Amino acid sequence: MSRIERAEVFVASPGRNFVTLRITTSDGVTGLGDATLNGRELAVASYLRDHLVPLLIDRDPARIEDMWQFLYKGAYWRRGPVTMTAISAVDTALWDIKGKVAGLPVYQLLGGRSRHGVTVYAHASGADVPSLLDDVERFLELGYRAVRAQAAVPEVGGTYGVRKGAGIYEPASTALPDEQPWDTDAYLGFAPTYLEAVRERFGFGFHLLHDVHHRLTPIEAAQFGKRVEGCRLFWMEDPTPAENQEAFRLIRRHTTTPIAVGEVFSSIWDVQQLITEQLIDYVRTTVVHAGGITHLRRIFDLAALYQVRTGSHGATDLSPVTLAAAVHLDTAVPNFGIQEYMPHAPETLEVFRSGVRFADGMLVPSEEPGLGVEYDAEAAARFPYQPRYLPVARRLDGSVHDW
Amino acid sequence: MSRIERAEVFVASPGRNFVTLRITTSDGVTGLGDATLNGRELAVASYLRDHLVPLLIDRDPARIEDMWQFLYKGAYWRRGPVTMTAISAVDTALWDIKGKVAGLPVYQLLGGRSRHGVTVYAHASGADVPSLLDDVERFLELGYRAVRAQAAVPEVGGTYGVRKGAGIYEPASTALPDEQPWDTDAYLGFAPTYLEAVRERFGFGFHLLHDVHHRLTPIEAAQFGKRVEGCRLFWMEDPTPAENQEAFRLIRRHTTTPIAVGEVFSSIWDVQQLITEQLIDYVRTTVVHAGGITHLRRIFDLAALYQVRTGSHGATDLSPVTLAAAVHLDTAVPNFGIQEYMPHAPETLEVFRSGVRFADGMLVPSEEPGLGVEYDAEAAARFPYQPRYLPVARRLDGSVHDW
Amino acid sequence: MSRIERAEVFVASPGRNFVTLRITTSDGVTGLGDATLNGRELAVASYLRDHLVPLLIDRDPARIEDMWQFLYKGAYWRRGPVTMTAISAVDTALWDIKGKVAGLPVYQLLGGRSRHGVTVYAHASGADVPSLLDDVERFLELGYRAVRAQAAVPEVGGTYGVRKGAGIYEPASTALPDEQPWDTDAYLGFAPTYLEAVRERFGFGFHLLHDVHHRLTPIEAAQFGKRVEGCRLFWMEDPTPAENQEAFRLIRRHTTTPIAVGEVFSSIWDVQQLITEQLIDYVRTTVVHAGGITHLRRIFDLAALYQVRTGSHGATDLSPVTLAAAVHLDTAVPNFGIQEYMPHAPETLEVFRSGVRFADGMLVPSEEPGLGVEYDAEAAARFPYQPRYLPVARRLDGSVHDW
Amino acid sequence: MSRIERAEVFVASPGRNFVTLRITTSDGVTGLGDATLNGRELAVASYLRDHLVPLLIDRDPARIEDMWQFLYKGAYWRRGPVTMTAISAVDTALWDIKGKVAGLPVYQLLGGRSRHGVTVYAHASGADVPSLLDDVERFLELGYRAVRAQAAVPEVGGTYGVRKGAGIYEPASTALPDEQPWDTDAYLGFAPTYLEAVRERFGFGFHLLHDVHHRLTPIEAAQFGKRVEGCRLFWMEDPTPAENQEAFRLIRRHTTTPIAVGEVFSSIWDVQQLITEQLIDYVRTTVVHAGGITHLRRIFDLAALYQVRTGSHGATDLSPVTLAAAVHLDTAVPNFGIQEYMPHAPETLEVFRSGVRFADGMLVPSEEPGLGVEYDAEAAARFPYQPRYLPVARRLDGSVHDW
Repeated sequence: MSRIERAEVFVASPGRNFVTLRITTSDGVTGLGDATLNGRELAVASYLRDHLVPLLIDRDPARIEDMWQFLYKGAYWRRGPVTMTAISAVDTALWDIKGKVAGLPVYQLLGGRSRHGVTVYAHASGADVPSLLDDVERFLELGYRAVRAQAAVPEVGGTYGVRKGAGIYEPASTALPDEQPWDTDAYLGFAPTYLEAVRERFGFGFHLLHDVHHRLTPIEAAQFGKRVEGCRLFWMEDPTPAENQEAFRLIRRHTTTPIAVGEVFSSIWDVQQLITEQLIDYVRTTVVHAGGITHLRRIFDLAALYQVRTGSHGATDLSPVTLAAAVHLDTAVPNFGIQEYMPHAPETLEVFRSGVRFADGMLVPSEEPGLGVEYDAEAAARFPYQPRYLPVARRLDGSVHDW
Repeated sequence: MSRIERAEVFVASPGRNFVTLRITTSDGVTGLGDATLNGRELAVASYLRDHLVPLLIDRDPARIEDMWQFLYKGAYWRRGPVTMTAISAVDTALWDIKGKVAGLPVYQLLGGRSRHGVTVYAHASGADVPSLLDDVERFLELGYRAVRAQAAVPEVGGTYGVRKGAGIYEPASTALPDEQPWDTDAYLGFAPTYLEAVRERFGFGFHLLHDVHHRLTPIEAAQFGKRVEGCRLFWMEDPTPAENQEAFRLIRRHTTTPIAVGEVFSSIWDVQQLITEQLIDYVRTTVVHAGGITHLRRIFDLAALYQVRTGSHGATDLSPVTLAAAVHLDTAVPNFGIQEYMPHAPETLEVFRSGVRFADGMLVPSEEPGLGVEYDAEAAARFPYQPRYLPVARRLDGSVHDW
Repeated sequence: MSRIERAEVFVASPGRNFVTLRITTSDGVTGLGDATLNGRELAVASYLRDHLVPLLIDRDPARIEDMWQFLYKGAYWRRGPVTMTAISAVDTALWDIKGKVAGLPVYQLLGGRSRHGVTVYAHASGADVPSLLDDVERFLELGYRAVRAQAAVPEVGGTYGVRKGAGIYEPASTALPDEQPWDTDAYLGFAPTYLEAVRERFGFGFHLLHDVHHRLTPIEAAQFGKRVEGCRLFWMEDPTPAENQEAFRLIRRHTTTPIAVGEVFSSIWDVQQLITEQLIDYVRTTVVHAGGITHLRRIFDLAALYQVRTGSHGATDLSPVTLAAAVHLDTAVPNFGIQEYMPHAPETLEVFRSGVRFADGMLVPSEEPGLGVEYDAEAAARFPYQPRYLPVARRLDGSVHDW
Repeated sequence: MSRIERAEVFVASPGRNFVTLRITTSDGVTGLGDATLNGRELAVASYLRDHLVPLLIDRDPARIEDMWQFLYKGAYWRRGPVTMTAISAVDTALWDIKGKVAGLPVYQLLGGRSRHGVTVYAHASGADVPSLLDDVERFLELGYRAVRAQAAVPEVGGTYGVRKGAGIYEPASTALPDEQPWDTDAYLGFAPTYLEAVRERFGFGFHLLHDVHHRLTPIEAAQFGKRVEGCRLFWMEDPTPAENQEAFRLIRRHTTTPIAVGEVFSSIWDVQQLITEQLIDYVRTTVVHAGGITHLRRIFDLAALYQVRTGSHGATDLSPVTLAAAVHLDTAVPNFGIQEYMPHAPETLEVFRSGVRFADGMLVPSEEPGLGVEYDAEAAARFPYQPRYLPVARRLDGSVHDW
């Protein structure tokens, strides 16, 4: 029987920080798992190196389900982002191995191809409305069928999701958290106007998305959703913090704007009420933070039962390993909705060689056995870890707001 | 204004592993926080050292609420045991400092003394019924007013909560997880008999508790609770895994045996439905795993509104810092129920010098300013970290069960 | 141990009636509590003098929680404005003492500063629309960031919240209740027009509030809320009497206009369903009428769990002691929303010397230990109590309506 | 038109403290209202004298409903024991006047006689089981058809409802509150045994009641109710504090022992959910504390809709005026259940000359116009007010429990 012989944890910063697990079996098969938790990378690396890797050695890599239960129930204190990201990395690597052992791409093990491509959405943003419109136009010209639009709120000189310069948007860009001002009224007055401007300029021939990024209370989110119904959004994302899942009932009562949520969730329990009460339309949980392919598939299956579709988080704070795993899952599940997509930086793609391909507004998975991603540890060594934090939002009176 | 000048993370194993945070202000005041997560210690240590300590430096130690919000919302991926244990350590240390600055023991800042002592329960166990009865007798003679009883299930040669030899019970005792057999039917047939034997032998003049330790399904837990009603248990603990809070409705429908749960919870959201639907009677969340004094007080206040009382976890996997913080809170809150208590090993008490005192089945807090605990880093250095895991349970067919 | 040595109840009318409790400890520390219940002042004074003061003597002033439970449960007949106002006064005075003993301003004991200032709203009113607009302008020029707007309903020659002359608005101004006419239809037709006029003239760069003052049925309130959605009110206050908390479900189903309620509430039970069902957005309970700092903090914490923010009542019928206590709480709690603010009369401020300061539309608490308010009993003696009643509303057919 | 000419408030202690309102009309008709709030008498006296009496003068005594609305809505801060007791006194006095003006006993104005007598229950108690049994026997021999049984809990040397010597049971008997020990376990182990002893000795030919007096949590109350089902109690009273009305759902799920509650309630809102969810079987609200005849009738009407019957509080802390009013209401309403009855002391009956008569276990109202009670102010003057407090319960650890 094959055994897990080695499990290595790599922390590197090719373009940005990534934590990567590589499992090698006694047969020399390797599998990759992403363990990146933006701004808390080293805690997950320690969880893996110090607490999980010793458990993996000599176990059977084929027993993915057993490993998942062993790590989840064996943790005793369950759930939460650090724990579940570490488990995700192990689970993803074992699926990669399983694919290679089978000589099949992972999506084949998940039931095979349900669609020829995975529709993605791009991130358009602007420091003002004209530059947002330019950015939307650029993405439409690139063939994207879905675009998320965010513009800087003038009163607070920016907001979540808006690039500052020409490069990639990366909010975790400072060695200590950037404490950014926030004013809900200014946002509520402004945001609907630029979404309307986008529709007025480019029409309804593509999906328009918007990310509220947890900034509103339920009643404010209800107002916003109602206000933008004419824009026929594909979704409004994260309208309010979701620890209290009941809160979405209030939003739901007032607006038919579809709702997406879940990028910060780490288990099915975080989304159980949201799904079973049909309080959302898209679930944004990811492979890397929500327990790997094994657990995420179960979240998607529960969602399907209630006509909730998938819309996984896919910012560049997830490594190409997660993106590949997501695309395999997206290709296979019946209730796929959309996939977020931000192209990785060149340095990232130098370290992670991925077979995922973009064309015509869609991603397609690699046809190679496993996930189709290779990790170049040597190249990675050239990019040492750099401490980076996500920002914190503060209201104008100085109190902490949800970022 | 006072500033946080230094924050040190100590990992040591005086008797068992503990992670301790010590914050020092620019005025030379120090505060202690416990950051021990049994079996995952180093991940929390990394979370603190690598990600939180840099955030603390130069901030105002008096702004406890702001710090809590800053760390909780600033994490972006919220909740979960590793994250919340790290936040707890910071919060507890700041309350320790606040008490010292005020010249008052922490319970005075929490509203003052509501009771003259904190009733605790002890852990009696036995490899068989006679030795369990001897152990119960021993604790009653030591003055305990409440005793938890667990006996080894003969068919599986043990179970959770049963000491193997003469020393302290410590389930996290092996360098790799002990994989222990489990058989629910054997347990369900056996456990009620020894609880009855305890009542028959010692009567009803003390509180009798039992820990199911997540081993039953809801309907099995309902059976168990109903079966032991004649024993008038103070509580049955953790009758079933609690990620799905609704599951307790089924238990609750069938039995009036009181229910306690919460030692594995890390936030108020884990217990919100259990409390607001009055599905439990005691909430077992702790200072160290449930967000510190700031957050635990909120859990306790929510509980009070629904006549749920406190019964905090207090095994030796919490350091004397947590025990002291718990005793301060227990002394102050109106809805205190009971406190779990396992005396720490002598080596532990050599490193943590605590003013908490036991007498007449009760604990009383120190009257010194702050928490009343000192950490001897020099002594601690003699006890290096030793990797230890909690066990994992497997059914007789080899599948993983909840331990 | 320190003991309560003396507790004095002062009734005086410096500008308007106030009842004040002053507790003095055996160490000579004094604490102040407000016990003013507009129009029923002497009943609270009697409750304190005749029934509570004898209970306070020789008790430990540090045991705030125990005192609260002792007075609340010891009353046997619990809750209600007179009882809870009396308990509030004791509780507030003990927190004042606790702060002085600790050498810290009260907000430091409540978790420290969460914001640099407490945003307040002012009361603009007018006998007609032009004078209302002038009044709004005046407050905006004074730096207020939030203004409540009320105009006299022409058909009934006035309404709640509208000043008659140039001075401060004081509804409790007559030796017997003023019985004022009321007509709901006239109000419903008129009020939206002046709120629109305010937005048209001054735009959306400040918070606009409106107080319905319990005058509508639920379906009328739903109509009103829906009708003014374009005005983007910060809140509509007291849309309907709230004894039947379920009534707010109907309002909530029809409009996203945020709702505030609570100035007449005396305990958490008055607001439990409103909060847990998220039927409101702001809770307006106050220190003086809702059980003091101890109980109000619990209301605010419950509110926070459901994303309900604070918006405490702050008319001049609360003494500067309550205003100071409110500002301390507002400074500390994470879910502060807004604070009502009417400046007290000069005579009031001569008797109550308070460290609360207004600047830039915000209040900041005193940095002195305790609440930072001193009571000048000698000055107070110059202002004897004057019986005053709030008005009563009658419909045009003479029947009593909610005022 | 007749006018209210005078309204006098008497505070006297003939046997125990009573507050009495006497209204005199311009036609010389007088009406009596009880305003006694045990342990807080002077606060109600002040509420009446200082705040309500001035409002009564010159108003039409015939407009009872208008007066109720005027006082209730005019208070602005509504509900609560002090406010509602004061309003009750006015309302009761006006009904007394109305009866005299009509030349009819009050029950005639309430719809006339529905029954020939009002079944009452007596208070049997004992320092031990034998003396309890003797006391039950005594009441059965006196012709009572219903007896409430309470015995001292040995471990705590007494409990609520147990006479200490030979006289009348009067818990409010000390100049400062008696702080009495309480132990729930001792009570839960003991109380069922004496209820069983009563049934064993005297059989089932009379109603057996028991008052838990708010001492249990919901799950404990559920246990208790389940445990005593064989005793076929008429009711278990006040099983748990009732501020959180939802708490009764849990009790209700586990036992068919009927439940009574309400002696501490002051308005229909305190009992709305309990009645509309059929969580109780008897509503114990009283004329004096629940808004007078006008409001209590409405509570009883709501109760009838849900098959809840009446069981009004009738301890001697209610004056003979309240007892008379209760008997009038009890005689008239369709859903009368039972009436508590403790005979007043001779001194009390010297001051209050009442036409209520006891025979065959029943009370019958006076046939005189009005309530049929006269107040002898001269006699009353011989019994000056004596400060008295109800006790407070403390658990064995010193913390405050519900008394």
